[in-house]
Amino acid sequence: MSETLSPTLSQTARTRLTRHRERGSDDRADLFAIIGEALVCHVGLVRDGEPVVLPSIHAADPDGPDEGGTLYLHGSVAAPWLLQAPGQTVCATFTLVDGAVLARAAFNHSMNYRSAVVYGAARRVDDPVERDHALRLIVDHVVPGRSATLRANTAKELAATTVLAVPLAEASVKVRSGGANDDAADVATGRWAGVVPLAVRAGIPQPEGDGPVPDDVRRRLADW
Amino acid sequence: MSETLSPTLSQTARTRLTRHRERGSDDRADLFAIIGEALVCHVGLVRDGEPVVLPSIHAADPDGPDEGGTLYLHGSVAAPWLLQAPGQTVCATFTLVDGAVLARAAFNHSMNYRSAVVYGAARRVDDPVERDHALRLIVDHVVPGRSATLRANTAKELAATTVLAVPLAEASVKVRSGGANDDAADVATGRWAGVVPLAVRAGIPQPEGDGPVPDDVRRRLADW
Repeated sequence: MSETLSPTLSQTARTRLTRHRERGSDDRADLFAIIGEALVCHVGLVRDGEPVVLPSIHAADPDGPDEGGTLYLHGSVAAPWLLQAPGQTVCATFTLVDGAVLARAAFNHSMNYRSAVVYGAARRVDDPVERDHALRLIVDHVVPGRSATLRANTAKELAATTVLAVPLAEASVKVRSGGANDDAADVATGRWAGVVPLAVRAGIPQPEGDGPVPDDVRRRLADW
Repeated sequence: MSETLSPTLSQTARTRLTRHRERGSDDRADLFAIIGEALVCHVGLVRDGEPVVLPSIHAADPDGPDEGGTLYLHGSVAAPWLLQAPGQTVCATFTLVDGAVLARAAFNHSMNYRSAVVYGAARRVDDPVERDHALRLIVDHVVPGRSATLRANTAKELAATTVLAVPLAEASVKVRSGGANDDAADVATGRWAGVVPLAVRAGIPQPEGDGPVPDDVRRRLADW
């Protein structure tokens, strides 16, 4: 559906920002950039009337079959949240922490971040072709190109896996960047303020057995 | 209440792990270590019957007034979720991503992580002494010792801030570490597998104005 989709995100009652609206972005490209860079998301659902938030890896397909493109989640068929989610609205939140903003006053301390909050009805993916596509995307989300280097999933592996799809139509994006917003009186004290940039970085790979680090992994390490 | 508290976490229907129970920890010290290291958490609540998940900074006080110790959250008095949460059960989830586990088969790819999921009724903190304590802890969560170097919050700043407390009595902890769990047949292929360690790292501070980086920030940088 992506060919007919607006490049901007439309606001709904759920996605309208109530605080710091100047930090909002309605650019759909920003949504996909944040989802693409976030290694994990936090998926919320309602169980017995109460909230449950679980970390999960994911992948997005801008050209997926759902309105706005498709967010894919997966896990064991035995995982209760994957059994419960289909048909329910879930909330998937993606947060990239870019820095600690250390201001002159406690009140003005902040974080620099890029975040996205997606709301949508979860759909269980049953079609074998879409399931295979989703599982490849999830592997490639961690290391681009990796799925093509691996053997196909076996029937047993596929039978053990639940795949969920969530439309990416309804989402908000919020970004904070820059320095401390201190009052002039605090700035005038000459007290130190600054931003400590933060990012997820990779260490040296710990291989099992012999052989060189494969090209897909080496390319990914160069980005991390 | 901490002096009468068991050092182990007791399971409830909400915190009992259903998958990979061998990854669970019932050591309360692990809970506090994860909460302490996580820069942000993801707070879930139910709004109009639907889940909402928002990133938030936080701090924990093992000796706080709530059963199991206290998790503190804060934000603007204008933030809807902080108005809505008191009296409701919230779910706060903390996730440290420690590595990408790149297996020989797609199915055995995984992440190394330490995570904690806390369930508890949120309480609005109204006592001025507890509010001040909580806000100092939150600053010190990002940079230990920093709050003591800053001026006190003004009455206006305090009036603009909501502080929430969540008991740390009901929580689950889950940890995955180590290498790929591939089948013997895949290992026998000689295909490469390995773990890429991942961690949040700080870059070079970007100061505003003059003056050396203060000691509290320098000490924090050494840990990052």
